[in-house]
Amino acid sequence: MEVFVIGLSIIVPASRKAFKRGFAEKSSNHMTAVKVGIIGASGYTGGELLRLLANHPEVEVKYASSREYAGKPITYVHPFLRKIYGSLRFSELSIDKALECDLVFFATPANVAVKFAPKLLESGLKIIDLSPDFRLKDPKKYERWYKFTHPYPDLLEKAVYGMPELHRAEIKNADLIASPGCNSTASILALAPLAERKVIDLDHVVVDVKVGSSEGGRKPDLGSHHPERENAIRPYSPKGHRHVAEIEQELSALSGREVKVVFVPHSVGAVRGALASCHSWLVEKLSELDLIKIYAEKYRSEPFVRLISGGLFRYPDAKNVVGSNFADIAAVLEPRVNRVTAFCAIDNLIKGAAGQAIQSMNIRLGFDETTGLRMPPVKPA
Amino acid sequence: MEVFVIGLSIIVPASRKAFKRGFAEKSSNHMTAVKVGIIGASGYTGGELLRLLANHPEVEVKYASSREYAGKPITYVHPFLRKIYGSLRFSELSIDKALECDLVFFATPANVAVKFAPKLLESGLKIIDLSPDFRLKDPKKYERWYKFTHPYPDLLEKAVYGMPELHRAEIKNADLIASPGCNSTASILALAPLAERKVIDLDHVVVDVKVGSSEGGRKPDLGSHHPERENAIRPYSPKGHRHVAEIEQELSALSGREVKVVFVPHSVGAVRGALASCHSWLVEKLSELDLIKIYAEKYRSEPFVRLISGGLFRYPDAKNVVGSNFADIAAVLEPRVNRVTAFCAIDNLIKGAAGQAIQSMNIRLGFDETTGLRMPPVKPA
Amino acid sequence: MEVFVIGLSIIVPASRKAFKRGFAEKSSNHMTAVKVGIIGASGYTGGELLRLLANHPEVEVKYASSREYAGKPITYVHPFLRKIYGSLRFSELSIDKALECDLVFFATPANVAVKFAPKLLESGLKIIDLSPDFRLKDPKKYERWYKFTHPYPDLLEKAVYGMPELHRAEIKNADLIASPGCNSTASILALAPLAERKVIDLDHVVVDVKVGSSEGGRKPDLGSHHPERENAIRPYSPKGHRHVAEIEQELSALSGREVKVVFVPHSVGAVRGALASCHSWLVEKLSELDLIKIYAEKYRSEPFVRLISGGLFRYPDAKNVVGSNFADIAAVLEPRVNRVTAFCAIDNLIKGAAGQAIQSMNIRLGFDETTGLRMPPVKPA
Amino acid sequence: MEVFVIGLSIIVPASRKAFKRGFAEKSSNHMTAVKVGIIGASGYTGGELLRLLANHPEVEVKYASSREYAGKPITYVHPFLRKIYGSLRFSELSIDKALECDLVFFATPANVAVKFAPKLLESGLKIIDLSPDFRLKDPKKYERWYKFTHPYPDLLEKAVYGMPELHRAEIKNADLIASPGCNSTASILALAPLAERKVIDLDHVVVDVKVGSSEGGRKPDLGSHHPERENAIRPYSPKGHRHVAEIEQELSALSGREVKVVFVPHSVGAVRGALASCHSWLVEKLSELDLIKIYAEKYRSEPFVRLISGGLFRYPDAKNVVGSNFADIAAVLEPRVNRVTAFCAIDNLIKGAAGQAIQSMNIRLGFDETTGLRMPPVKPA
Repeated sequence: MEVFVIGLSIIVPASRKAFKRGFAEKSSNHMTAVKVGIIGASGYTGGELLRLLANHPEVEVKYASSREYAGKPITYVHPFLRKIYGSLRFSELSIDKALECDLVFFATPANVAVKFAPKLLESGLKIIDLSPDFRLKDPKKYERWYKFTHPYPDLLEKAVYGMPELHRAEIKNADLIASPGCNSTASILALAPLAERKVIDLDHVVVDVKVGSSEGGRKPDLGSHHPERENAIRPYSPKGHRHVAEIEQELSALSGREVKVVFVPHSVGAVRGALASCHSWLVEKLSELDLIKIYAEKYRSEPFVRLISGGLFRYPDAKNVVGSNFADIAAVLEPRVNRVTAFCAIDNLIKGAAGQAIQSMNIRLGFDETTGLRMPPVKPA
Repeated sequence: MEVFVIGLSIIVPASRKAFKRGFAEKSSNHMTAVKVGIIGASGYTGGELLRLLANHPEVEVKYASSREYAGKPITYVHPFLRKIYGSLRFSELSIDKALECDLVFFATPANVAVKFAPKLLESGLKIIDLSPDFRLKDPKKYERWYKFTHPYPDLLEKAVYGMPELHRAEIKNADLIASPGCNSTASILALAPLAERKVIDLDHVVVDVKVGSSEGGRKPDLGSHHPERENAIRPYSPKGHRHVAEIEQELSALSGREVKVVFVPHSVGAVRGALASCHSWLVEKLSELDLIKIYAEKYRSEPFVRLISGGLFRYPDAKNVVGSNFADIAAVLEPRVNRVTAFCAIDNLIKGAAGQAIQSMNIRLGFDETTGLRMPPVKPA
Repeated sequence: MEVFVIGLSIIVPASRKAFKRGFAEKSSNHMTAVKVGIIGASGYTGGELLRLLANHPEVEVKYASSREYAGKPITYVHPFLRKIYGSLRFSELSIDKALECDLVFFATPANVAVKFAPKLLESGLKIIDLSPDFRLKDPKKYERWYKFTHPYPDLLEKAVYGMPELHRAEIKNADLIASPGCNSTASILALAPLAERKVIDLDHVVVDVKVGSSEGGRKPDLGSHHPERENAIRPYSPKGHRHVAEIEQELSALSGREVKVVFVPHSVGAVRGALASCHSWLVEKLSELDLIKIYAEKYRSEPFVRLISGGLFRYPDAKNVVGSNFADIAAVLEPRVNRVTAFCAIDNLIKGAAGQAIQSMNIRLGFDETTGLRMPPVKPA
Repeated sequence: MEVFVIGLSIIVPASRKAFKRGFAEKSSNHMTAVKVGIIGASGYTGGELLRLLANHPEVEVKYASSREYAGKPITYVHPFLRKIYGSLRFSELSIDKALECDLVFFATPANVAVKFAPKLLESGLKIIDLSPDFRLKDPKKYERWYKFTHPYPDLLEKAVYGMPELHRAEIKNADLIASPGCNSTASILALAPLAERKVIDLDHVVVDVKVGSSEGGRKPDLGSHHPERENAIRPYSPKGHRHVAEIEQELSALSGREVKVVFVPHSVGAVRGALASCHSWLVEKLSELDLIKIYAEKYRSEPFVRLISGGLFRYPDAKNVVGSNFADIAAVLEPRVNRVTAFCAIDNLIKGAAGQAIQSMNIRLGFDETTGLRMPPVKPA
């Protein structure tokens, strides 16, 4: 099963180099490429980092770790990346290997980054952690939501929540960036302008998220088995999903008061894509034009936020962003009941994971923020 | 293109009868079958009535109208019904033909049933209208939501909202039954026990519905074009969908006060299936067990309501009801924010349309309420 | 997780019976129901037998075995069957329990039925085996394709291949019926008339099958993980799938000469449904009308074969049969290259598994062949 | 509906420029960009050209024509391209406008390019035609397959079939490149090495293609209506699809003899992606290793062909190429029947349309052949 790269190179030695060098490998005179590592590179988020970084002109992936697949070519797990990557193989997770990089991404489950980050940070490495280990400011929240005592409250203080639209200035100087997940990204981006302006009833906010199957990761189980998952329309973790902690943290910070939200995610029929529908009630009289202004003022300079108002497909649709780092946002008013619903559609693996992390990396390393992220959505798909 | 039935019967005259008689046709000694007609039988709701009534032992479809396809066999439009129906053809809409039936279903767009119903009712026919023409009690609501002046306010008074779980006794004697659509059915069934007991904050109710593509009917347009619709996750009519009028009417009647709800439907990736997620806040202290009791008391004798609490797939999922007349319901509590979310999953074309209409027919005609509707869900599918 | 049935019945004792009796349970005065058992009832084929037999007026499922889930209610594994089945639970596989039935279905992997069948047959039980254990007549083929020495060559001789369209007369008297799977059913039904009449080049037959994900069974793995399986278009086992043995056996028998076919199955994006496209070349000059006649002569009296020639959706489409026991068949001619392609579309879990097995049961037990199988396809879905 | 760009720019004048300039627009000092036009830019192929060329560093789209949408921003039809393109609008088809470009793509239905090409060519413009108008060398084939008399047999002679793997040298100097469609690309790439080496029985070749819904274009009809198309598994044009003419032309040229193939395309459940399964019989004794060598010798230097032999997903799967310009190819041997099946998976809109056309453009204009086409597949999706 694993012989294909070797096998073919034996048979066709003349083309060996062509097989060994993928599109993602920088030519030898590209001496200035920043070296990055990916811890946990065999999952979907790790695979997406590999995929997106292949197009990034300023960095090169030098290190990709995977306990399960150490020693195997990354294309054994990610066969779609053949000819993109040539000879890169998974390694064991090793501090020494990581330290050969300038920056590492953690695309690991909870409780891995927290074990390795302190040592790496001491050595001057920059870290972008896509796991929840450093997202919450308040160590007590880790006890409540993640059932463990966070060992580094000081690092929680230093860590920056890696959402450029809210924390760009801090990201510029952060060595530990806690990059948000898809549910939180869609929900916070949708609600931030309303929370900041305090125009909604912050005691009554409902966040109803719909998301595709890739959100659940690469590990098969009965719930993700195709005959069980395809055509599903069902809630998951409806009694209090842990991501609500980040959402509340960020909205509270924006509004200057404690915000509690109702948050219910749903599995729907798609592989990629997420839509947050955030319902609340206005506390002051606003027209739809007022709403548009509020959103435009917040997001007008954002390279990856697209505000929608009008057009044939005139509300955010996951289909219009899949494959890209865009977040499509609209706020809709129903004056009859004084209600506002803010929608945000993203690609859960890009703006909701790997893309947003790379956006933070660009900011931190002083590149143009959109470097490597200008790919248009793939539509129709 | 239309020659197949004729063509084959010419070639194989010996088998003519086998081709002409479908499973749905009653044998000649079944003299007591009730004669039913379907006005608007070429759409998805009409097709579903044909499909379900084929299995019904007490009725026979004698008349199926379609302006567009009058004269053609019903299997021209519904090829999947070959061998189920033999020789039945679409007719023009005609009062005289309808009057040969004992009961007719209207599976028509708004504004058709209202034109024909009065005359048919006068002649003693029973009508089950799957369009919105007689669902609202208050004629003024037609002006507001449907932009027309209802010509028969007296019929609105007589019409019964065809939801057996709420109006079984009235359905028993009604000659004009206004059968609800899928959005309303899922939303009302989910919320009815909470509204009736007034245990939620009826000023803050959010109904977030997700539904498959068959909800939009059989007429192609760009939004339903497969490359544009598949994998979509997007809201439609988010500024105030007209179905909210029925939902508010029924919840107000149950609670004895005016209820206004936030209602936003979404298109998600499936052909069949709908899930209503109904979020609100408790106004009194209740445990999850209290909630279960409230739902069990309301629905314990209902043949088509299945309450869910526990189990591997422990929340309502459209997948578990598609192909059946079941409504799967659960209410979930998050004590931290005193929030309740009630979920209801249905097959939008069955419990949300044709199945519910047949359930009402059974009640009205004195059959066992489950006759012809005992088919299990089709899973996996 | 497993408390839901018990939990609710404690809370609402008044409704206990309503919860305990499902639609599928026969009333106590139905004394004549034939008792059937299902060995291996927790998989998809077993679940489909449960689902379809619930509608069957002449039999009652008395016994459902599952090693993994013994002791649990069948609705724990098949939650969609709640209210269809009430109190039925999985049992361990036991000869004694099986012997309380009149007939048992084996819905087990290869190599299970072969161990239990002899003893059950001795005791006068009738067996319908949906596994491959008794499908091949030639014991040597088991060595070649299944890598084991078949211990009961005499039973292979007695067993009848359970395809009613080819073996109805033998099924009537068979105590051991080897019911075919989906790939074989679609392929053989498509080609049988051509093979029997020897009008095609039987040395050049290509069978290219496309099938949905439920074909792979209920056990999750990476290939069936939703993000990996959805939107897939790929072959599986393309070097010689073992089902080719049955296809060749039946086509050889029909044509009176040895037939070898090229057989390649493909995974495509659907949960249910299979289409066989069978390509060959004519050895004599035939018109399309001749082809229609050949197929009509073979299948004109078949209750579940629908020949297609013309109409809007004028070629077999899995969509038009899903949910039913129908096989939609057409043969298409391209005179330019003297080529014929015969298509057959079926629901892989019904006509390709459980439905066909029940059809054989009806024939064997003397019921109307269509009993319990008259359900129309579910479309749109 | 069309006010969104204007509307927002009125409200937020400060950000006007940010809204007006998209990622695809070259900065003003990029004076050397080649100017390209797209005739027929509102369809899926035109949209895909826009999407891919947005990433191309050497060209800029200056002109996009659409009769139906002339005057509207391209983002009105392709809303997913907002922020990628800023102010580009559709124009009427005009020779003068086209002549302002250096190269134009025709992404039009049959019979459009043939009307405009001669004049444009005279003026020195380079043309890449994605329609069938110039693909066939023999004018008589247009009468047979397309039912019209081709007015420019001389241009047919000059036109080059735009498949770089077969005609790279000619493409380098061609001013009229007839770029193949998806069915032909997948079929020819799969079979070319076998045809060229004449190792298969060229009188018995079956090409069975499976393709997603985007292949049918952007115009809605009943067959592409989501409830009718989703989960479909059905053939289309099975009696002789016109694309067979190109396939036969190229395979005949490669093998030096007349080749006739059986070609049947199928609609399966996906939006993007195509797989050709090409079945034939060997005419000489070859091992699988021999086959691998034959393919490696043909394709070893091809930047976009990936040969597959081994690995977890070890056969071509449309999922592994969607979003990229790759063609994944494998040939599989079944010695028992001396059969070979060659598979080729592509993204029908990229390698099967816009990507391949851009690849030809790169060759023609002297750019690195992979410029703008190095994007990895999007997986999982």
